[in-house]
Amino acid sequence: MKLFTFFLVAVATMAGLVAIIAAAQGHADGGPAPIFVTEIPHGYRDWKWISSAHEAGKLNSLGAVLGNDVAINSYREGKLPFPDGTIIAALHYRNVPSEENNKVFGQAQSFVPGPPTNIQFMVKDSKKYAATGGWGFAHFADDKPGDVAFMKTCFPCHEKAKATDLVFTRYAP
Amino acid sequence: MKLFTFFLVAVATMAGLVAIIAAAQGHADGGPAPIFVTEIPHGYRDWKWISSAHEAGKLNSLGAVLGNDVAINSYREGKLPFPDGTIIAALHYRNVPSEENNKVFGQAQSFVPGPPTNIQFMVKDSKKYAATGGWGFAHFADDKPGDVAFMKTCFPCHEKAKATDLVFTRYAP
Repeated sequence: MKLFTFFLVAVATMAGLVAIIAAAQGHADGGPAPIFVTEIPHGYRDWKWISSAHEAGKLNSLGAVLGNDVAINSYREGKLPFPDGTIIAALHYRNVPSEENNKVFGQAQSFVPGPPTNIQFMVKDSKKYAATGGWGFAHFADDKPGDVAFMKTCFPCHEKAKATDLVFTRYAP
Repeated sequence: MKLFTFFLVAVATMAGLVAIIAAAQGHADGGPAPIFVTEIPHGYRDWKWISSAHEAGKLNSLGAVLGNDVAINSYREGKLPFPDGTIIAALHYRNVPSEENNKVFGQAQSFVPGPPTNIQFMVKDSKKYAATGGWGFAHFADDKPGDVAFMKTCFPCHEKAKATDLVFTRYAP
C-alpha cells in the first residue's frame, strides 16, 4: 500500500512537471495556452517603418520598430485594438557614436545603430494568446529565444499600455 | 540711341535674372544642370528601413533612413556606387523624451520621434546631377523645399563621404 501511494504521488508530480514545462514552452496540446512566440516571423526586415526609438541608460539602445501590412494599416487608420494577424517587430542595436559622421560635423553629436542586440516581436492572436491580452511576445538574441523567466516579464510591463492595446510605439508621421 | 542702349541692358539683365532663377530652381532647359530636387519623391513613407539615426546637440534629432527598392538592393548587395534610380530618404523628427515609457521604466531613459522637422532625399541620376557627384539633394520642411543658399551646403558636406558614394548612412542588419 505504501509503495502504491508513493507511485501515485510520483505520477502526479511527473504530470505536474510536464504541465509546467509544456505551459512554459507553449507546446501543450490541449493544455494551457502558449505564452510566447518561439519562431522569428518570416520577412520582417522588409516590413515598413513605424518609428525609431532610443533607450538611454543601461539599455543604451538605438533601433527601429517595423510592422507587417496588417500592423501598418491599423496604425494609419488609427484603429484599436490591433486586429489578429498584426505583427510588430522591434529591432535593437547598441547605440554607438559615428566617428565618421562626427569628423564631418566637427563635433561628437552623431549616434547610429552599432552591433545588433536583440529582435522582439508582438504577434496578435486573440485566441491563442488570450491569457496575455491577445499578444504573443517574442525575443531573440543571436537567433535564440529568451528563456521562460525572461519571457514572463513581457506581458506585465506591456499591460501598462492598456490604452493603446499594450503597444508602446506610436506611428511616426 | 540712349533709349535703345537702355533697352538692351534691360533685356540682358532680365535674361540674366531668368537664367539665375532657372539654375536655382533646376528648371533651365538646356541651361546649367539642376543642383537639387524640388519635388517630394512619391511613396517614400512606404519604403524599407535602412537605419535609424540620432543627432544630439543643436540638431537634437531622431529619425530613420528609408530607401526605395533600388537603394535597398544596392545596400544589401554591398555594391558601390549606387545605381541611377536610387533614392534615399532621411525622415527627421525632434528627439523628445517619452513620458509614457519613462513612467513604465521608472526612470527617464526613453526617447522617441516628436514633431517632424524635415525630410531629406538623395536622388541618384549620374547625368542630371553630374555636377554634384551624380546625386540630387532635397530638403523639405512643412512640404517646402530649402532655399538655394541652404541647398548649396548639401554637396560639399556629402562629398566628404566619397568612399561610400557620398552616402553617410550604413545599412543596419
